[in-house]
Amino acid sequence: MEMTIKDPLGTAVVVLSGGQDSTTCLFWAIKKYKKVIGISFDYGQKHIKEIECAKNICLENNIEHHIIELPILNTLTENSLTRIDIDVDSEKPKEGLPNSFVDGRNMLFLNVAAIFAKQKGAHTIITGVSQTDFSGYPDCRYEFIKSMEVSLTLAMDYPFSIKTPLMWLDKSQVWNLADELGVLDVIREKTITCYNGIKGEGCGKCPACKLRNEGYKKFLQEYKK
Amino acid sequence: MEMTIKDPLGTAVVVLSGGQDSTTCLFWAIKKYKKVIGISFDYGQKHIKEIECAKNICLENNIEHHIIELPILNTLTENSLTRIDIDVDSEKPKEGLPNSFVDGRNMLFLNVAAIFAKQKGAHTIITGVSQTDFSGYPDCRYEFIKSMEVSLTLAMDYPFSIKTPLMWLDKSQVWNLADELGVLDVIREKTITCYNGIKGEGCGKCPACKLRNEGYKKFLQEYKK
Repeated sequence: MEMTIKDPLGTAVVVLSGGQDSTTCLFWAIKKYKKVIGISFDYGQKHIKEIECAKNICLENNIEHHIIELPILNTLTENSLTRIDIDVDSEKPKEGLPNSFVDGRNMLFLNVAAIFAKQKGAHTIITGVSQTDFSGYPDCRYEFIKSMEVSLTLAMDYPFSIKTPLMWLDKSQVWNLADELGVLDVIREKTITCYNGIKGEGCGKCPACKLRNEGYKKFLQEYKK
Repeated sequence: MEMTIKDPLGTAVVVLSGGQDSTTCLFWAIKKYKKVIGISFDYGQKHIKEIECAKNICLENNIEHHIIELPILNTLTENSLTRIDIDVDSEKPKEGLPNSFVDGRNMLFLNVAAIFAKQKGAHTIITGVSQTDFSGYPDCRYEFIKSMEVSLTLAMDYPFSIKTPLMWLDKSQVWNLADELGVLDVIREKTITCYNGIKGEGCGKCPACKLRNEGYKKFLQEYKK
């Protein structure tokens, strides 16, 4: 069976939530690959508006976009991201994981993205995970991503490469990357990161908002003074 | 974070299709683990009767059983197992994979089974894959299973062990294992392996039936003469 990537910069599939990180990755991919396809997962998350953001950004940039329903995550786990009767922690708990955690969520996304990518003849999957922004999600770490590349490649006898352009960047550096890609305003205005589903600057209170807004402040201080 | 399995023979989750192989694994697990939980995936397969078999076998043996809906496989791939307008190949094609192939199906099952297992406090996942009965499914191979154990463990910071009691057995040896476990008649009468959904001896024509029936003949010749 053939195990080479004929065209490493051919088609890339971007796992696109509609938030700052994955949208920055989308624009990074557009600069680098011949064809880019965005996929978003609808797993019954509260901030479903994120997917609308993803869809609109792809439409405006003439990027093929697919929304894949994945209710399995809601079936398997009980947590604040998918159940409307639980409040999202406003502070990250001192011990353990924030209650927005869905165990193995990112792995499942990558698994489905890979099945989809093979259907499309793509070898590259791009995800906006970051070791810096680890927050306790083990399936966002470098060592997991490297292991997952091997598992996916063996599972389908088809070479997969998982690109993580943000792996070692902090949030201010992610803002700077957007600036370098010429899409700072697009990211600022058209993406949602907020766990409570509020666009742009967000609720300002959830962990995701704090990280995003503090990162932006640091970006202005360090790169724009 | 703790990364040890306190009770390796505590709870095991068996991926249970209701066919010969996975049902034999179920009985193997019952002998070995304190608690066994069966999970079956409903992904819109034609032979949905398999799941009924799985359910009944668990009921009769007082085993906790869960049916998990996974329509994503039907969404992502077009093939003869899930679409009623395509006939299953009666002969295995000389080149390539049989048209019942769903790329990455087994990997996705293991991924979801692991998320489920962690919810249940189980570290062990049991699957009836076999390298001998490879049939071109790369995610049934030993090297994939070993890699997947690592990926799952890293993904959830939680040690997973994937047990594959049938990995190096041919079909006659699987029949012999059932015999040794004292469940030969249960497996013969109450499981479905047939791609066309016919219980027991099946249609006799699809690749799964041929493998099962030839294996049984060989078992009788080699172990029962």
